Amino acid sequence: MGELGDRHGETDDVDLESLYGLTDELVRETLAAIESQDRGRLRELTEPLHAADMADLFQALSAQNRARLEDLLGDELDAEVFAHLDEAVREDLIDELDSDALVKVVNELDSDDAVGLIEELERDEQRALLDGVPAADRLLYEQALAFPEDSAGRLMRREYAAVPSIWSVGETIDYMRDDPDVPEDFYGLFVVGPDNKPAGVVMTSRLLRSHRPVAVSDIMEPEIRLIPAAMDQEDVAFLFRQYGLVEAPVVDEDGRIIGVITVDDVVDVIDEEHEEDMLKLGGVAVDDLYEAVADTIKSRLSWLLLNLLTAILASIVIGFFQAEIEKVVALAVLMPIVASMGGNAGTQTLTVAVRALAMKELTPSNALRIVGKEVLVGGVNGIVFAVLMGTIAYFWFGDLLIGIVIGIAMILNLLVAGLAGILIPLAIDRAGADPAVGSSIVLTTVTDVLGFLCFLGLASVVLL
Amino acid sequence: MGELGDRHGETDDVDLESLYGLTDELVRETLAAIESQDRGRLRELTEPLHAADMADLFQALSAQNRARLEDLLGDELDAEVFAHLDEAVREDLIDELDSDALVKVVNELDSDDAVGLIEELERDEQRALLDGVPAADRLLYEQALAFPEDSAGRLMRREYAAVPSIWSVGETIDYMRDDPDVPEDFYGLFVVGPDNKPAGVVMTSRLLRSHRPVAVSDIMEPEIRLIPAAMDQEDVAFLFRQYGLVEAPVVDEDGRIIGVITVDDVVDVIDEEHEEDMLKLGGVAVDDLYEAVADTIKSRLSWLLLNLLTAILASIVIGFFQAEIEKVVALAVLMPIVASMGGNAGTQTLTVAVRALAMKELTPSNALRIVGKEVLVGGVNGIVFAVLMGTIAYFWFGDLLIGIVIGIAMILNLLVAGLAGILIPLAIDRAGADPAVGSSIVLTTVTDVLGFLCFLGLASVVLL
Repeated sequence: MGELGDRHGETDDVDLESLYGLTDELVRETLAAIESQDRGRLRELTEPLHAADMADLFQALSAQNRARLEDLLGDELDAEVFAHLDEAVREDLIDELDSDALVKVVNELDSDDAVGLIEELERDEQRALLDGVPAADRLLYEQALAFPEDSAGRLMRREYAAVPSIWSVGETIDYMRDDPDVPEDFYGLFVVGPDNKPAGVVMTSRLLRSHRPVAVSDIMEPEIRLIPAAMDQEDVAFLFRQYGLVEAPVVDEDGRIIGVITVDDVVDVIDEEHEEDMLKLGGVAVDDLYEAVADTIKSRLSWLLLNLLTAILASIVIGFFQAEIEKVVALAVLMPIVASMGGNAGTQTLTVAVRALAMKELTPSNALRIVGKEVLVGGVNGIVFAVLMGTIAYFWFGDLLIGIVIGIAMILNLLVAGLAGILIPLAIDRAGADPAVGSSIVLTTVTDVLGFLCFLGLASVVLL
Repeated sequence: MGELGDRHGETDDVDLESLYGLTDELVRETLAAIESQDRGRLRELTEPLHAADMADLFQALSAQNRARLEDLLGDELDAEVFAHLDEAVREDLIDELDSDALVKVVNELDSDDAVGLIEELERDEQRALLDGVPAADRLLYEQALAFPEDSAGRLMRREYAAVPSIWSVGETIDYMRDDPDVPEDFYGLFVVGPDNKPAGVVMTSRLLRSHRPVAVSDIMEPEIRLIPAAMDQEDVAFLFRQYGLVEAPVVDEDGRIIGVITVDDVVDVIDEEHEEDMLKLGGVAVDDLYEAVADTIKSRLSWLLLNLLTAILASIVIGFFQAEIEKVVALAVLMPIVASMGGNAGTQTLTVAVRALAMKELTPSNALRIVGKEVLVGGVNGIVFAVLMGTIAYFWFGDLLIGIVIGIAMILNLLVAGLAGILIPLAIDRAGADPAVGSSIVLTTVTDVLGFLCFLGLASVVLL
């Protein structure tokens, strides 16, 4: 139980506070400046902030104050702030902008951030916006939007550095010095064949350390992983994580390079996917921290409704045993314990399984072994808690038979919980759905229904 | 409820399979080769694998076959595979190595990966290993191990590229070409003052594009974030994510540069921290997928034991109302519904709150507003389910009073659930502990105990 008392981060809060731009004091002072409509003071307060901190500042305010701050800052609001905002907050702030201001924001963003913003707009807003941007950009955005949502094609930046494989280091350096189209900062240069297919990558540090006559194809790393533009961003994140990638070329169906994905974009995707898994396991469809109250109520209600149905199912099972409960009311007192232990033991297994599936660590090769292990763990823990709870029940109600009944029910239910905790997510995954969503509700239905059935059924046979 | 049917990644599996080195077929063929002790075939199968895929291959095997594969590969096992292995599996494989082989592995690893391996050894194993490595490396490792566990000092690589701020681009390029101490690949060069304090960073791409006489201090990015060596890795990950960093210098107490952290290391930390949050919410202390059965039983038992105690607490509450249940057995049938709905509604709020705390999005500035929102959400959902469940109970048991009782209990319990779901993690966080660990058990105790108390207490007043 050593982990239960874990304290983390605490002693280092001082360090972090000096490095993280947003402080509670800054929020308070900003609020005061908004209140007094002091544009000068607001400029002074927000000017030194990184765009990501500025986004956090907006998020720390109420919806009303966010709109007032946006209004007071006007043109001085850095477009990049929009790239860092939570989706719900961004939507609100964009709604406050007129169409010219929105076009200005989009024009100032990198192509990947711009696409991230445009894809969230309604179809007619998208149309109006795209009519306002320069033709070359419009084409880029339209191409990106033609890829499926959450795909590599949406995630990629269109600005990348590539040189022909026949070039030398010297030619490459001269090109980079003189060509205005080369992006300002990048980590590696892609080396492409005459067909524009990537053949390798040259780290800029390697380029710097090589002499001018050397051919780039001699110093390039030929082992690169080409990301198909239609690939799901979750799989892109998996590849970056698995192979420690920093950037990877995105290719079209013919294998020609059309963009680049860098690790900082992937960090956001990893965060998003993790958040989804965690929230879905907790029965929340989206991160609703910044959602309006009405939207939050609506989205949480559907999950609770489903839960009500399964709870009623468990109650119907109890209903079968009303006669027994009337005679031995101790059963009503003890029955939630069996269900609760089953639910918790099952959730432990389920959590590990969902995580392992997301990490591609639970595969056909080891599934059977893991199922066997979970049954064993459930069985042994079942025996431990059978003895423990059986003894407690015996002394509580002074009835050995009640102790035996809850003991046997405990073993059966923890066995079922272990088995269900691993088989349910495996089955949902095999069926092509997301195991993080459906698993927990199916699991508690199984452990509740079977828990009550085992305990009350056994009791009706043994006690009456 | 649209999310429930989400299918993701499925259509892109073909893409991913061609890019991810490990296939079920490869696992099967490896197993066959292990069985027939065919070293040549094993070499052929594993030679093309990336170290990360090789680690996954080990993890797909049973403990016994892992040891046999390690033994059969012998010297040909790439040291880097150890850097990619899950902790439990790595421990097993290291136990199989003799001390010379272990020294060889450590010598082949990057300094950060080597530290990651050494820190997991027992103290006497560490001593024995450190005696075997070259003196210069030993010093580096000992310095790293002197930093707290999970700190920036443990995470950083000691090999970094830095140049004096008085140098020109030309001098820098010449130095990089000629000095063998410069690391092979890196993204940026740190520019340091005479006191070895970092003053800025120059992207190598920027260096490449500048002419030789330009001073590095003129093209450097002066805004860099210095990571104190003692900072917790969770905070390091936060800074990288917040500011989209690719690498950052680690400094000692006097602000002098002593190492570098790159984003690929941070991706692993983000994964680790996410995993911890998710597993702890599910009542699992560590990812035990690869743990031995006995260790898994032990670690899960402690959590279940705690849960048993809280379940007994809820049962004691029910025990107060045995007389009422004997008279109106419908109470026993309906009571799990109130507890279950409260537990699930509370878990929704809790999940969002724990996530927001981890992301530093739930702060004193907005806590009150979020608490108010959760109470409102809980109240409205409470009313919805009060009407719904009240009606169902009325028709089920033909008793209007039972419907009214469960309705009022539902409102009270969902209000409490919303309040507890946000206040419990806030309080645990304020107390300096990890809200992901204790929250869920405290929450279900509160919703169970208050749920039963509301429902049965109301019933005893209204019905009897």
